[in-house]
Amino acid sequence: MTKDIEKGYTSPKTKIGQHKMEVLVASAEELFAEKGFYDTSVADICKHAHTAVGTFYIYFATKTDVYRCLLDKYQAEIKDLLADSIRHCTTRYEKERRGIKCFVKYAVCNPTVYKVIWGSLSIDEKMFHDYYVSFAKSYIYGLQSAKEEIATEDYTTLAYALMGISNFLGLRAIFEQMTDDQIDKMIDDTIMPILSHGTLK
Amino acid sequence: MTKDIEKGYTSPKTKIGQHKMEVLVASAEELFAEKGFYDTSVADICKHAHTAVGTFYIYFATKTDVYRCLLDKYQAEIKDLLADSIRHCTTRYEKERRGIKCFVKYAVCNPTVYKVIWGSLSIDEKMFHDYYVSFAKSYIYGLQSAKEEIATEDYTTLAYALMGISNFLGLRAIFEQMTDDQIDKMIDDTIMPILSHGTLK
Repeated sequence: MTKDIEKGYTSPKTKIGQHKMEVLVASAEELFAEKGFYDTSVADICKHAHTAVGTFYIYFATKTDVYRCLLDKYQAEIKDLLADSIRHCTTRYEKERRGIKCFVKYAVCNPTVYKVIWGSLSIDEKMFHDYYVSFAKSYIYGLQSAKEEIATEDYTTLAYALMGISNFLGLRAIFEQMTDDQIDKMIDDTIMPILSHGTLK
Repeated sequence: MTKDIEKGYTSPKTKIGQHKMEVLVASAEELFAEKGFYDTSVADICKHAHTAVGTFYIYFATKTDVYRCLLDKYQAEIKDLLADSIRHCTTRYEKERRGIKCFVKYAVCNPTVYKVIWGSLSIDEKMFHDYYVSFAKSYIYGLQSAKEEIATEDYTTLAYALMGISNFLGLRAIFEQMTDDQIDKMIDDTIMPILSHGTLK
């Protein structure tokens, strides 16, 4: 088991270790959502997880490290979900259509995801920066692999624009408690025509 | 002077009162950016503003109220800046072009604005919700008044998509420390053609 300096936390090599770490992260996730990062202590996380405080420090050096681990978990979860949602798509248009819908529906089911991701900016700016730069990198890679289907060659700008669209449609869907049908309609009828043909005359 | 229950803080009626309140908000703004909301106390805000604690409670009931006031200040500032930037534009295309540039440049000059606005989600979800719903309302109003220049009639979805684009281009511009020229180029060469003609073939 080696300390991953870049990540700030230690990835366990045994299944039991992996399980113990996941229990601690799940406990932190619940408490951060309920009481916030600042009103949650390492002792609270351990108590809620029925784990000794000493065990926490095998995996994490600080409370911020468990937050970073939670953010990595969300990123992996979202990337897996998106990859899964576009698995059978044969065009970039269809990938965007399904990917944006998938993200917005995920946001509606997991509204605390914004609190954790955007809240990271107040805890550690580098953590927030790394989250979005890593997300953008994957998006750019996906766009670059569909060059012949995209009019612009500025994939970085397009990736940030698409991330912005998904994130703010997710916010709107949470605010208005939109159903899956309403989300589908918003993306099929408004967003996709904009991405295909534009909207400003 | 009346307590504005909706706002959660009291707007002073005299110039001296207005000045005192502004000094307290400016003090809170500096301390929130430096130490964060949770590590800043009402006593810290007053000490930094050279103001008696009793004065604070004339205007604000809680520390959260001064945060809400700060958020309102940002909203008014951004709306004024945007309104000013598009004052002489005669087309919606030109208004979007200038408005997005204006927001992204403002973000680069005031990167803590994300910390305050997005951080509000962890402090009071309603405050965050009200901020964006109010912002969207203004945007929708502007889009509706240019119906004949916009292909979609779903102005709400378009407003959130455009807010998302501006916000995430602002993030990118901060991450990459973009110059004004680079921001202009990103919007002129990539974003505006997408908004006019789309990008997915």
